[in-house]
Amino acid sequence: MADPVLTIHHLRLSQSERVIWLCEELGLPYTLKAYDRDPETSAAPASYKALHPTGTAPVITDGDIVLGETNAIVEYILAKANQRGGDDNNVNDLALPPNHPNYAPYLFWLHHANGSLQPALNGLLFSHMQRQIDSGAASSTTVTNPNADIPSVSTINQARLNLALSAMETQLSQSSYLAGAQFTAADCMALFPLTTFRLFLP
Amino acid sequence: MADPVLTIHHLRLSQSERVIWLCEELGLPYTLKAYDRDPETSAAPASYKALHPTGTAPVITDGDIVLGETNAIVEYILAKANQRGGDDNNVNDLALPPNHPNYAPYLFWLHHANGSLQPALNGLLFSHMQRQIDSGAASSTTVTNPNADIPSVSTINQARLNLALSAMETQLSQSSYLAGAQFTAADCMALFPLTTFRLFLP
Repeated sequence: MADPVLTIHHLRLSQSERVIWLCEELGLPYTLKAYDRDPETSAAPASYKALHPTGTAPVITDGDIVLGETNAIVEYILAKANQRGGDDNNVNDLALPPNHPNYAPYLFWLHHANGSLQPALNGLLFSHMQRQIDSGAASSTTVTNPNADIPSVSTINQARLNLALSAMETQLSQSSYLAGAQFTAADCMALFPLTTFRLFLP
Repeated sequence: MADPVLTIHHLRLSQSERVIWLCEELGLPYTLKAYDRDPETSAAPASYKALHPTGTAPVITDGDIVLGETNAIVEYILAKANQRGGDDNNVNDLALPPNHPNYAPYLFWLHHANGSLQPALNGLLFSHMQRQIDSGAASSTTVTNPNADIPSVSTINQARLNLALSAMETQLSQSSYLAGAQFTAADCMALFPLTTFRLFLP
């Protein structure tokens, strides 16, 4: 087999299903490794969280490469399919090239799902969780919980933020820029949440 | 001038600053059109919201093309810089190519900012807004607000969701797939929030 085997680490009931679908459409060979959520808490198992510093789904491995973030994975797989292409007409017609008349709408819709649609849904989910926590706290747990004035949804987001910042800290202790020795667009993307956004959040 | 003029519609105090920075680094010519937020509400002006169906910042225009979503814009600009390149060594060394040893980390960090870091910050901001709304409601507005049991942060997210769904609906009334006549990775990205995510949200 010429290609290193791509492994999709699929957390059931998560957006990693997108990655499987994409590979199927591209005819790109992969190994599927599925993980079940905890039936009580819906949390990912420890073995899944250990795959990648972010602990989120999806994750793929490709030889020594361990990659997280859906959009990064999707673009990685499209590029990989492109490199395999040429003699296979089925490969990589899922990404429109820059000279295609629909290139701009393609990019918009590629990123709109996780840039706008999914964040709105997550916001609604978190509001729902918060209401459940609040109604529970009102009946029994207020006194026993010393952090009752700090909503648990904030705690979740604070933990996610700490994880993201610590991953960035680790990376920048190893290289001058996020993607290595070279300044890239990734650095341009990272600055806003660290600087200007502070003006919105006390 | 050979290139059509790229216009960056810059909402002050927003992530559109990323797009300006990127163009500066790439040496890509652009026209800057800046918009101020409402001093009372921090909302974008109506002229900004009218630029693009999503009403969010940033937005760029390039001839007839009107493009939203930061990640889409960043990739559009990187591709545009690449097309201008060749005789200009300063151009497009901000995107690592698929054969670069750091390609996977580059993609990860390119998408981690808006995929994980910024959502955590937004979640914290929304929790903060909710606490402010709740404390206000407790003191005076509970009785006069008929929707007091529906938190306003949910209302914001519901409006964003409606906007995203309606944009998708409009697009799919005009073409078979999101990016036009051809099935692309954009369609793979869009399905999860419309299907599996329902299992999390009542």
